[in-house]
This record gives sequence, structure tokens and C-alpha cells, in this order.
Amino acid sequence: MDPTTPSLWERFRKYFVSYADLDFALDISRMRFADDFLTQMTPQAERAFGEMAELEKGTIANPDEQRMVGHYWLRDPQLAPNPELRADIEETNARIKKFAADVHRGVITSESQEKFAHLLLIGIGGSALGPQFIADALGSSNDPADIFFFDNTDPNGFDRVFAKMGDEIASTLVIVISKSGGTKETRNGMLEAQAHFEKAGLDFGKHAVAVTGVDSDLDKYAEQHGWLARFPMHDWVGGRTSVMSAVGLLPAALLGFDIDDFLAGAAAMDAHTRVPDVRKNAAMLLALMWYYAGNGRGEKDMVILPYKDRLALFSRYLQQLVMESLGKEKDRAGKIVHQGIAVYGNKGSTDQHAYVQQLRDGVPNFFVTFIEVAKDRATSRFEVEEGVTSGDYLHGFLRGTRAALYEKGRESITISIPEVNARQVGSLIALYERAVGFYGSLVNVNAYHQPGVEAGKKAATRLLELQARARKTLPKAPGQTAGELARALKADPEDVYHLLCHLAANDNSIGRTAAEEPAREQFFSR
Amino acid sequence: MDPTTPSLWERFRKYFVSYADLDFALDISRMRFADDFLTQMTPQAERAFGEMAELEKGTIANPDEQRMVGHYWLRDPQLAPNPELRADIEETNARIKKFAADVHRGVITSESQEKFAHLLLIGIGGSALGPQFIADALGSSNDPADIFFFDNTDPNGFDRVFAKMGDEIASTLVIVISKSGGTKETRNGMLEAQAHFEKAGLDFGKHAVAVTGVDSDLDKYAEQHGWLARFPMHDWVGGRTSVMSAVGLLPAALLGFDIDDFLAGAAAMDAHTRVPDVRKNAAMLLALMWYYAGNGRGEKDMVILPYKDRLALFSRYLQQLVMESLGKEKDRAGKIVHQGIAVYGNKGSTDQHAYVQQLRDGVPNFFVTFIEVAKDRATSRFEVEEGVTSGDYLHGFLRGTRAALYEKGRESITISIPEVNARQVGSLIALYERAVGFYGSLVNVNAYHQPGVEAGKKAATRLLELQARARKTLPKAPGQTAGELARALKADPEDVYHLLCHLAANDNSIGRTAAEEPAREQFFSR
Repeated sequence: MDPTTPSLWERFRKYFVSYADLDFALDISRMRFADDFLTQMTPQAERAFGEMAELEKGTIANPDEQRMVGHYWLRDPQLAPNPELRADIEETNARIKKFAADVHRGVITSESQEKFAHLLLIGIGGSALGPQFIADALGSSNDPADIFFFDNTDPNGFDRVFAKMGDEIASTLVIVISKSGGTKETRNGMLEAQAHFEKAGLDFGKHAVAVTGVDSDLDKYAEQHGWLARFPMHDWVGGRTSVMSAVGLLPAALLGFDIDDFLAGAAAMDAHTRVPDVRKNAAMLLALMWYYAGNGRGEKDMVILPYKDRLALFSRYLQQLVMESLGKEKDRAGKIVHQGIAVYGNKGSTDQHAYVQQLRDGVPNFFVTFIEVAKDRATSRFEVEEGVTSGDYLHGFLRGTRAALYEKGRESITISIPEVNARQVGSLIALYERAVGFYGSLVNVNAYHQPGVEAGKKAATRLLELQARARKTLPKAPGQTAGELARALKADPEDVYHLLCHLAANDNSIGRTAAEEPAREQFFSR
Repeated sequence: MDPTTPSLWERFRKYFVSYADLDFALDISRMRFADDFLTQMTPQAERAFGEMAELEKGTIANPDEQRMVGHYWLRDPQLAPNPELRADIEETNARIKKFAADVHRGVITSESQEKFAHLLLIGIGGSALGPQFIADALGSSNDPADIFFFDNTDPNGFDRVFAKMGDEIASTLVIVISKSGGTKETRNGMLEAQAHFEKAGLDFGKHAVAVTGVDSDLDKYAEQHGWLARFPMHDWVGGRTSVMSAVGLLPAALLGFDIDDFLAGAAAMDAHTRVPDVRKNAAMLLALMWYYAGNGRGEKDMVILPYKDRLALFSRYLQQLVMESLGKEKDRAGKIVHQGIAVYGNKGSTDQHAYVQQLRDGVPNFFVTFIEVAKDRATSRFEVEEGVTSGDYLHGFLRGTRAALYEKGRESITISIPEVNARQVGSLIALYERAVGFYGSLVNVNAYHQPGVEAGKKAATRLLELQARARKTLPKAPGQTAGELARALKADPEDVYHLLCHLAANDNSIGRTAAEEPAREQFFSR
């Protein structure tokens, strides 16, 4: 902003990397690292390049599950470590395109020979975040279908989607996505949808497609119930990097997006970021900036601010990709490190009106990543003032906020892309996938497993078992408190209390008496 | 979870506060504060109670703008410090109800005498986040209207909403919300909408309503152009606490929500949290937990996890309320403190699949607020296994995750509400509004101003002025680089470079030559 600081222009020229074929640029000049930082980090970066090369060749990179990690092969099947894998990718992609084309041409139709005009995607985590992001980023009103999601196990959430869809379920294709086939939220959503279709006199199987591991419970269920199709999830693709497998490609193709462009954009970014040259490698520079910002210990949150409505869900996508990959208790040597980087953000300039106050003035526990999209709109230019468009304002707010934050010592990265299309979205995802992998190497954590997610699920399973036992133990009339019931069940009174409160709120056969405090409430079955 | 820890049950009983009239409960037992913490903090809490009492009486609480801060009066006009304010609130609310009823009964219609069946709300920050949250939380398929938003200045974002609305704009009521009437994003959205309506042969003014400060530019514009109605934004209501003014009430009433219940829920929570008794005051307990978690310096992020789809936008609402209120450079004595608390989160159990890995195992820089909703659904019970519903799973995941985090030393607060309705949403908002006010007192920052938000806007304005000058300076053929143009303009070359790149991407009359690096690119006008 200040014309008396030519050094910023010099720094911009020095720390600006662009890829002409993608019209992509990364600007790290507003991160205040010292000029020798990149040189200092080169040995670690070299190691990360080496590890990534091994991973791409097919080493076992997820030792917990003894798996290869192959999401890079999905967009460049020639790189797959053996011909079987390569054929598997190519055949799956060909089947996806054929299936989508058949749906669009009305070769594959609903029971009543209607064209499928709506999609209901049932999945959670890696099986929903990618499809949600690309549907929002690339969708338009001319698409051959619109899309609804079940991404939770909230009964009212299911009901709300059903209410929105109304009679349209008759022309709805349901995509059930679960790698293991055992994810309870997805299983529940599938059972609820199936019941809803049956109530409407529709044969669920004639509307359903599965994306799941070969021979998983879901795979078998879909086969037994004569579903329209089944597409494989390869065991060497993790959920959070599955958007270029059938998980993301099937819904994308059905929505009419160009999946070849999507894959080609990722492949082009991969080609650039595979080059083991720190200063030209945007993924490595990103990883190094995260390392610099948080001292390699995640001390700063990553605030993602795309100045474009269509990219508003990118931060949610990145929350999973970054936090599940990097949020680890132990490093690869088994040392307790409590790594990770917190990610949040929605979109600019909207978020300026929500929390730039804190970013500029408040606790300096973050760095920002601005994402700029050069092209404002596809329709004709509209001026809100002489010579000035809404898009000029959007751009001005991005640059103005970047400057206002910098003035106060708040650092930022700026990524520029030409527009939001399948190719560019593919390239952005590929960039972050590789940056996350590199950062994992830099801080020596395994970015490809998730040992911490089981505990909550196991605890939930134990609670549901306790709920079943508690139901049976309830007296037929008031008289027992949670504490008394817990003693009989040899269980924790707090667990028993909460389970019974929840049952009493939802099951007429369970009663609860009011009392001054939880320990005195009494529960019974009617 | 562990039956051998009876102390957790005792702690739960001790640190559990409930309000029977709201069926509301707050459980702070899984925050590991010492038993004397609340006693130790009582003097500061007492001061905060006193300051809040003064604020509610009408002291100037925003000294920057010499304003009272009166959002508590909105739901209990009797508390307003003078009869004029009271009458103002009551009249505005009565006018809102009458206007909405007239729209619903078809007394106020579109130009073509159609009932208004759609709303387009144009606003940003406090003028959009509240309406977005309540529309998503309370909306159903039976509502008398659906709602679209312009909450940015993204041209493609406008186009996308227009494309979705299609011909329905003929039966669309547009609500333009801007307190100052000068917010550029909102002004731009209004101009774009006006042009779009005119292109469709519709008289924009006959579809438009303004919510704005009396005599603001927007107010005058609406009057001059014969808009359907104008509703006031009082100067004593801040944007981030405006959801119970016309900003939130007008769209809520038009959507068919019960605004009396919404206000009554807030008033009921206010009544409880006005009581200056630390142990019974849920808002003070929340504020004290934030203080405890982050050592009064915002050292931990606030992760908001409502286990209910309808509350997924609550965290975005709270991002503004918390971060804009508390993210301050200086305390009230003028000392540099860099306060604030970062807020993020979406919904459970969905987010478990995104980042519970990091929450449980990774960097321990957060505390969680779980929000439990007792009632699963309004429709009939559906079992996914014998005796078990999707809602039992949702509840099990909440409790299981809470336990799994606690095992690893990660702390959490749990709020319980009976269901997501207007009354409960009103009470939740009131709870957080007061907690934020209390926390401001505890850490001695002014929670009611936002001095840091102007810098980015001013920088953007300077850039747009520079853009206009740069346009005029451009040569008619290639030959000038950004650096050369900047010297002529006495401006920063980086600014000039980015402005011209953006123009070249969007205005055919501006040309840009490709080059190896930014400093060599040349710009010209055609």
C-alpha cells in the first residue's frame, strides 16, 4: 500500500511462483520469514520430496492398515505401481462415465421410466465433504440433476431433506458411499431412505447405487438387493483423499461436470509439485509456510478466505484434509508430539464483516490464505459506479484486507486462479493434498492414518449397549433414580442419566419424573 | 464412561445448571477448573454483573460512537431507558407483524398482484448472519416463502442466485439491510438486483423493502424510489446483536416464524442470566469457562459442535458475535492486549469424521461446546436396529465423543435444549450475547465497538481510486510495465500490478502481455 516500501515489490517478485499452463500463482511474500529460511529448510524438504516419491511408487505409507496410499494415481493411472491397479482405475472411470451418460440419455431410469433428475448422496466425512465442495463450486442451474445430502444421523435432518424433495424422490438416484460399508451414520441414512422410498411405494434398490469397498457389507447388501450399480473404493485411497475416486467422480459425472478436466487439473498440479525444487514447488512452499507460521507445531490456525462464493466450502473440505492428516498424538518415531493445524474460514469479503476485527486487532494466533479468482463472472460486465464493478470491489477488499492485516504484522499467503471450473478445482485439491503430505514429512508425522477416531465411536457403541440394558432394567413405575439404576447395571450414573433423558424425550414408553436436580429424577417404563 | 469414577457424577451434579421454564441445561463439569475457581473469580464476575446492569439501564457502552447498547430491550421493551425507545421498539415490531401478515394474506403483493412467495435478502455481516442462521434453524417446506441471500459482492455469486431464482423474481420480495446504508457489498448487491429486475421488466421498488438507519442513504433512496416499506435500525443496536431488531424479525416474520416466541425465549434467558449469582447464571458460567480455558487471553479456540443439522450455522453466527466483540487490540484502559477467541465448528456427528482426529490426538489448542437437542424428530419413531434409532446414535456419538476427548484431557462444555424452535433459538442467542458481554468485562475490553474493521475498507477504497487513475494512464499499446506505470502514478507497483491483472481478466478494453515474471508484463488499453 505504501509507495515508500519498494522492498515489498521486490519481495513479491522473489516469492511469487506461477504455473502458466494452469494460470495459477502462489504469493508467499506477505509471510515474514527470513531470506535464508527456504535454504535452511532445504534438507528437510529434500527428505519430504524423497518420501513423497516413495509413496507415489507404492510403498506402504499407512502402516496401521498395511496400505499403499495412491490418490495421485487416480489422475494419472500410468503412475500406478502395477498394471492391475492401473486397469482398475481406468475401468472404474470408464464405468462411471458410461453410467452417467446412460442416466443422462435416459437409458438408465427410475422404476417409472423417468429420467433421474435428482441425486441423494448418503455419506459422511470423506464420503461427503468432497462431493459437497465440488457440487457447490461447480454446480449451475442447467445441470442435469440437483443434489441433496444425508451427511449425519440426525432424524430431523433426514426429515427435512425428505420434505424438501417431496414427490421428486420418484425421479431420484440415491448414491450410498461408505468405504468400509460399516459407517453407522451412513447405514442409518440408507435405512431411513429405504423406508421412506418403500412408504412411497418405490423399490429402493431400483434407485440406489453403492460406492464401497469390494465385498464390504454395503457391497453385499447392494448386490443382494439388486441395486442399479456398485462402484469400488480402493483400499489404497483414504477417505479424505477420495474425491478423485468413484466417491467424487460418480456424483460429479452425474451432475454433468467434466471429470476429465477435473482429473487433468489435478494431474497438471501434480506434475508441477512433483518437481523437487523448493522454490518452484507450490505445494512445498505452502507446507514450508505452514511450518514457518506455526513453528512446526501448529501454533497458528490456518484461516482460509476464498474471495468467491463458489469456494465457500473449501475450508470445510480442508478442515478434514489438513486436520485429520496432521492432527496426530505421536510422530513416526513414537514420540508424543500433539501435532496438527486448526483450519477455519468461509469466504471473503463476507467474513471481513464477521471477524476481520479480531484478525487485525485481536489474538495473533493465525495466518490467512487468501484465494483470488481472476474472472468475476461469465455474464456481461455491470458497473456499480463509473468504471467500477462489484468484482472490482471484491478484488479491492481482498487486497485491502491483505494490506490492513500486513500493517499489523498479520501474515498471509495469496493463491490466484483464473476461474472456478473443474480443472482449477482439481488443481487446488491436488495442491493441498501434496502440501499436507509434505508437511507430514516435515514434522515427521504419518499423514495417512487416523488412529484417534475410533475411541469416540467405541464409546458410542458402549453407550448404545448400555441403553439396551437400561431399557430392560427400568421399573414399571417411578421409584428409581439414575444413580440406583446405574448401580444395578454396574454402569456410570452420568451415562445412565443422559441415556434415559434422551429416551424419555423420544420414546413414549419411557417416563421421567421432574425433580430439582438430576440425581433425584426417576425413570420408568410404561 | 468409567464406572470407577464416581467423582465425575458428583462433579456433574455440582456444575450442572438448568432452567425448567426453558428446559435448558448447561453442564460445565468436563472443564477441569479447580473447585475454588468460581469463588476466586467472583469479584470480577460481580464487576461484570454491575457493568451489565449499567449497560441495560442505557449507559453509553460504545464510547467510539457515543451510543447506548440496547439489544436486551428489543425482547423486553419495558426495560428501555425511556418511553420513546420503548414505543419505537413496540411500534416497529407491530409494523413488522402487520407487514408480514399483509404479505401472507395477499394484501401486499407483487406488481402483478401475485403473492410474494420468495425472499431475497441483501445484507452482509450482522445484516445476514442472523437471518441466515434462523432461516436454516427454523425453516420448513411449509413456510409461506423461501429465502435467498446476497451476502457478498461476488458477481458470479449474484448470477448464481439469479439463475436459481429464474422467473420467480416476479413473486420475490427483496429485503435490503444496511444500518449505515453505505455498506458497499450491500449497495452493489442492491444495484445488481435492481438492474436484474428492470431487465425482466419489473419495477424494483415495488418489490423492495429497506431495513436501515433513519435518514441513511439507503433510507432516502428507498423513499425516493417508492419502495414498499422501510423499517428502522436503531443506532443503539449493533450489527452483530441486531437479529432481534427488524434485521432478523422482518425476514423471520415473512418466513412465517413465531417472532413473539423468538423474543420470549430471549427474554426468558435474559431473566435468568440477569441474576447476579455466579453459580446459577449460565451466561456468566460460560464466560468464566472461556476465561478459564484460555487463561483470559484467548489461548484456546472455541469449537462449537451442535449435534443437529438445523444448528449447523450457529458457529458462523457465533464467529461474528464472539470474534468481533472480543477481538480487540487494546483493553478499556488503552493497554495493548490483543484479545479475542477464535471460533469454528459445523455440526456433529459430521465433524467427528472431519477433525475429531485432531481434537483428540493433536494440538490441544481448543475447548469444545457440545449442543445437545433432546427431541430427535417430529415424525414417528423409526428404528435402525431393535430398540435403537438414528437419534440414539446421534446422542451416543455426542456423549461418546465428549468422553473420548475427556479421556485425553480435552475439555468441553455441554448445552442441552429440548428442540430447535423459535423460543429455543432466541434463548441460545440471548445466552451467548450476554456471555460475550460478561467476558468483555472479565478481560476488560469493550465488546461493543469494532475499530479494526475500517482499515481494510479504506485500503480497498484507495485501491479503487488508484484503479481509476491507472486506467487513464494506460498507454494505447504494450510498452509499460506495472513498475513503470506505478512510478508515473506515484503508487505501489504491487498494487498497480494486481489491479491491472484483475482489470485485464474482466474488461476487454484492458490488455496484458504474457511474460516470464510479473515485473516484465506490460499493460495497455485497447
